[in-house]
Amino acid sequence: MNAGAEPERLLKLGERSLASTRVLELRSVRFRSLRRATEGDYTVIAAPDWVNVVALTASDRLVLVRQFRYGIDDLSLEIPGGVIEAGEDPISAGQRELGEETGFAGSPARLLGSVHPNPAIQNNRCHLVLVENAELRGDTAWDHDEEIEVSTAPVEEVLEWARTGRITHSLVVCGLFMFERWWAGRRPAPPV
Amino acid sequence: MNAGAEPERLLKLGERSLASTRVLELRSVRFRSLRRATEGDYTVIAAPDWVNVVALTASDRLVLVRQFRYGIDDLSLEIPGGVIEAGEDPISAGQRELGEETGFAGSPARLLGSVHPNPAIQNNRCHLVLVENAELRGDTAWDHDEEIEVSTAPVEEVLEWARTGRITHSLVVCGLFMFERWWAGRRPAPPV
Repeated sequence: MNAGAEPERLLKLGERSLASTRVLELRSVRFRSLRRATEGDYTVIAAPDWVNVVALTASDRLVLVRQFRYGIDDLSLEIPGGVIEAGEDPISAGQRELGEETGFAGSPARLLGSVHPNPAIQNNRCHLVLVENAELRGDTAWDHDEEIEVSTAPVEEVLEWARTGRITHSLVVCGLFMFERWWAGRRPAPPV
Repeated sequence: MNAGAEPERLLKLGERSLASTRVLELRSVRFRSLRRATEGDYTVIAAPDWVNVVALTASDRLVLVRQFRYGIDDLSLEIPGGVIEAGEDPISAGQRELGEETGFAGSPARLLGSVHPNPAIQNNRCHLVLVENAELRGDTAWDHDEEIEVSTAPVEEVLEWARTGRITHSLVVCGLFMFERWWAGRRPAPPV
């Protein structure tokens, strides 16, 4: 069943900056519809790509971080992650963020997948990286205003928290969803 | 394993608006750490809560929408959704958005769960609503600049698209993840 035609790809005419902060730029972008012969200005948040890291220990536990989050004015339980720096690939960025936030490191590291945090109003992507054999190997390197509670928990418990609302960060939930697929393929079959 | 103390909940001192658009307000919010005796300004995107709708037909298909998205300057395949209006509850908003975008309606409707799109820089939540027995019942009511391709696809196919990158909207992926849990509980057990 398909009730409509292919939607039009609008023509981007130009953009102007409305405000710029340390982590993002708010833009007004003008698009033209050739089909409708109309133009309009739309809000776009421009930001670098982000990375979230599923770090799996040899004993099948995941590395978690809990920290104060300014957006929701509350603590949030998450997997490690952050902003990909210019010139950095997602896997290197993931390994760097994992080390800085938690002191954990491991290998192999691989890309599980990528999502758009919000295609409607945001231009960037968030990459989900898996690091296997994660273990505590060094000191953390927090920013001056970072304070992070590091812990580990069994895989099945963390997946359950993502499904039942103890973990609420949408990009973390996406990362765990993609990890679950890999995890299901790796697990030994249950006894018949 | 728990390598850190409980992180401090910072004290919100005040906020000022940096820019305001039709869909969000960009704010600079000042927080104080009593523990570190420091203050800082942080970017927060203030927006109303959002809703995404998993609409399941009697023949176990999900209702999908495909439209041009200004943030990524491209088409995006998603489940229906939108902004919850003032005074509206998530379930009513979900049913309204489903009807307006696709012409589908159904019942029962229930809340599958809620996520924070981005606790780090965004103050709102996105609610995930399930509507069962969805069927085409009326006309769509698109905004003047909306153009939406409506389709349905089998549940298992849509879940696979969320896992493998054909569906990239993080909030849609979250909604399908939460639906999958409900779906797994509903499905008849596979033959032994």
